[in-house]
Amino acid sequence: MKFFKLFALAFLCATSLMAQGSDSVMLRQFYNVALEEGHSYENLRHLCKQIGPRLSGSKNAQKAVEWSKKLMEDYGFDKVYLQELMVPHWERGAKEASFIIEGNTKIPVRIAALGGSIATPANGITAQVVEVKNFEQLKSIGAAVKGKIVFFNRPFDAKLFDTFEAYSGAVNQRGQGAVEAAKLGAVGVIVRSMTNIIDDNPHTGGMRYQDGVTKIPAAAISTKAAELLSQKLSVNGSAVKLYFKQNCQTLPDALSYNVIGEIRGSVNPDNIITVGGHLDSWDLAEGAHDDGTGVTQSIEVLRIFKVLKYKPQNTIRAVMFMNEENGLRGGAKYAELAKQNNEKHIAALESDEGGFTPRGFTIEDAPVALAHFSKWKHLLEPYKVSDIEAGVSGSDLGPLKTAVPGIVLIGFKPDSQRYFDIHHASSDVFENVNKRELELGAASIASMIYLIDKYGTK
Amino acid sequence: MKFFKLFALAFLCATSLMAQGSDSVMLRQFYNVALEEGHSYENLRHLCKQIGPRLSGSKNAQKAVEWSKKLMEDYGFDKVYLQELMVPHWERGAKEASFIIEGNTKIPVRIAALGGSIATPANGITAQVVEVKNFEQLKSIGAAVKGKIVFFNRPFDAKLFDTFEAYSGAVNQRGQGAVEAAKLGAVGVIVRSMTNIIDDNPHTGGMRYQDGVTKIPAAAISTKAAELLSQKLSVNGSAVKLYFKQNCQTLPDALSYNVIGEIRGSVNPDNIITVGGHLDSWDLAEGAHDDGTGVTQSIEVLRIFKVLKYKPQNTIRAVMFMNEENGLRGGAKYAELAKQNNEKHIAALESDEGGFTPRGFTIEDAPVALAHFSKWKHLLEPYKVSDIEAGVSGSDLGPLKTAVPGIVLIGFKPDSQRYFDIHHASSDVFENVNKRELELGAASIASMIYLIDKYGTK
Repeated sequence: MKFFKLFALAFLCATSLMAQGSDSVMLRQFYNVALEEGHSYENLRHLCKQIGPRLSGSKNAQKAVEWSKKLMEDYGFDKVYLQELMVPHWERGAKEASFIIEGNTKIPVRIAALGGSIATPANGITAQVVEVKNFEQLKSIGAAVKGKIVFFNRPFDAKLFDTFEAYSGAVNQRGQGAVEAAKLGAVGVIVRSMTNIIDDNPHTGGMRYQDGVTKIPAAAISTKAAELLSQKLSVNGSAVKLYFKQNCQTLPDALSYNVIGEIRGSVNPDNIITVGGHLDSWDLAEGAHDDGTGVTQSIEVLRIFKVLKYKPQNTIRAVMFMNEENGLRGGAKYAELAKQNNEKHIAALESDEGGFTPRGFTIEDAPVALAHFSKWKHLLEPYKVSDIEAGVSGSDLGPLKTAVPGIVLIGFKPDSQRYFDIHHASSDVFENVNKRELELGAASIASMIYLIDKYGTK
Repeated sequence: MKFFKLFALAFLCATSLMAQGSDSVMLRQFYNVALEEGHSYENLRHLCKQIGPRLSGSKNAQKAVEWSKKLMEDYGFDKVYLQELMVPHWERGAKEASFIIEGNTKIPVRIAALGGSIATPANGITAQVVEVKNFEQLKSIGAAVKGKIVFFNRPFDAKLFDTFEAYSGAVNQRGQGAVEAAKLGAVGVIVRSMTNIIDDNPHTGGMRYQDGVTKIPAAAISTKAAELLSQKLSVNGSAVKLYFKQNCQTLPDALSYNVIGEIRGSVNPDNIITVGGHLDSWDLAEGAHDDGTGVTQSIEVLRIFKVLKYKPQNTIRAVMFMNEENGLRGGAKYAELAKQNNEKHIAALESDEGGFTPRGFTIEDAPVALAHFSKWKHLLEPYKVSDIEAGVSGSDLGPLKTAVPGIVLIGFKPDSQRYFDIHHASSDVFENVNKRELELGAASIASMIYLIDKYGTK
């Protein structure tokens, strides 16, 4: 009996080691394919250079839909299809203009209308400027902002290691600033760009209006110009005026699509694991890191599986979400259909924090899965992508949480230090993506999807 | 007695927790200073833009000596001084020229003479080309290379996660290629640039000759041109010729210096902890990542201590080594003087793998220190710089190993993915350094030096 127990134990250990051995061999193959014969970099080049900016509702967004559908068909995925949806359609129009005015001196500064903003009157707005750091300060100033432009100038907190935390701490100025300023009678809003660095690129991004509150135009200003404006205001105060002009507009909602490619599960085809990024991008650049990298990595995961003839047990679905940037309609539609069709979703992973060196994965509100996934750290350590931590996943996945109870939501977590240098700015171009960093991300995501496919989420 | 034991245990735990608490507070302060009021980035800008390339023996190298000495004096370090040494003095001369020749067609390609190489004859060299991947293949070809140019074209192994491993696997072509080719009668050597990426920048670097073996000129060729040349050779073979011309020369050894700044130890001033980088750089760019970042980070460590009024127990020494790139004379001189003066060195750390996001530290052949340092991982984890691993330290520290028995040698280990994109090429410029990544490195090194100062190496 004792002998049998020992033997059983040895057998268990051996099979466990063998399984782990085969897992580490499999992960090695994912990295080999991604690094030696990867397609993600050239696919990203095409998306950035042949298509380019692709804001929801634009012609380029439609081109990106057609291109990614054809790409996945050409790769021979088992099923490639579209999910129809309606998206907001906002256009920037002519390039914005802005000056700081001191007496007879006009100093041009670089701004960019915030997505969703209304235009200024055709002659632009010229007004005194009130600088504030936050909504509390704005409220304490109160009615004195009437007829003026409110200048939100709270910078990122440089002390925060994760730049997404710094972004979270500053971004309400952009999203909610126009509403709070309009409540007090301001005529326009200028927001310091959401970035760590001091340069001359304005960073656009979404903003909201509120029913019952007057809509006023809102724009981002480059950090360099924000520092200049702040300095001028501190010296000359009410003698300083700002002029800005933008002629952006919101058109009727447009027809668009999520794009989906699948490899059918060999054991449980009805169980689904989703891996995705978003296809739309802001209009100022090429949407390279945001989120061309997530899109091309997601497609690469399925391509790697096919190249290696790996047959997943569950259906693996690459999803190119539409309209993450200014509406999240793609994420909402995906969740709505998942619920409507009673789909069994095991997990969903999004890559939407850039194509930088992978550090790990964040698991959203799922402590059991977090503990389970943490057992795989030793497999991920050779590639230094073993930070398995609690945290948010991806914006497009949010609606799945209530639509598909029990689904585990995962965020791909690359190094965050450079992301906000280029985020939503004219510098988010292909040239700022490093080939190896992008490829390592694709292989890391493939590894995570493989492990979930094989060992589940608990 | 039992009560006393329990009490003693509780007391020990409490003081240990307090010590850890104060350590985490101290590390947080290092990062705050580096990120919020750091000088490393602006110092690097000066070194790159106001001084620029600074190969040993050049006027710029001397300017860098004077600048870094004055900088540390201005910061009020306790002692700032120079160590005199003689360095090799090699000059590139006029820009190189090279063509692939096919019949009447000449295709210009980009090359750069390797450091230490002799010139070609004034009219250049024109010869048939023999492509090889390694020395074994070269030897198997044997005397057939006589009168020809040997083209070493073994690329980096993309599969290796750490790009320094890929570099190690390829760099013997650059260092030893001319000797091996000359032994068989070749008239020149062209080496594929030591990089992962395919672009048009040749990457220079050191090469050696050997007594008794004819010296032949050697140059690096861009990876793009290497691919083209290889393709031409595969199609047209002996009909393809290469022309190249360079007029570099080696002048007599020149006087130069290591530059050293110290904060005197408050408890054990005779015990020394060294933190350094190298001041010299290749001549094609600004030596930003190689190794302006190591230099400015090392100075920043001492500056951070001063700003925070932190009094180290041991003497902390920032060392700007001279001549890492083509001679290692600075490292040799530093070790020689340490031995001669019977200095007590506890540890030495070098930052010479670029100013990228910090990942951790490598400890060279010191398992006891490795185990000891590993106890600090929890303090480094909030900054994701907790990879404490066995590995090589830095080239400049090598000579200390025998000169100062017992010294612990440490390498600062940033993310390696982008390093060889720019290494020794015209793209190693200030613009390719990210401010936060650089600053995080400085704070990480300060943290490690602080912990060694406080808790020793075992």
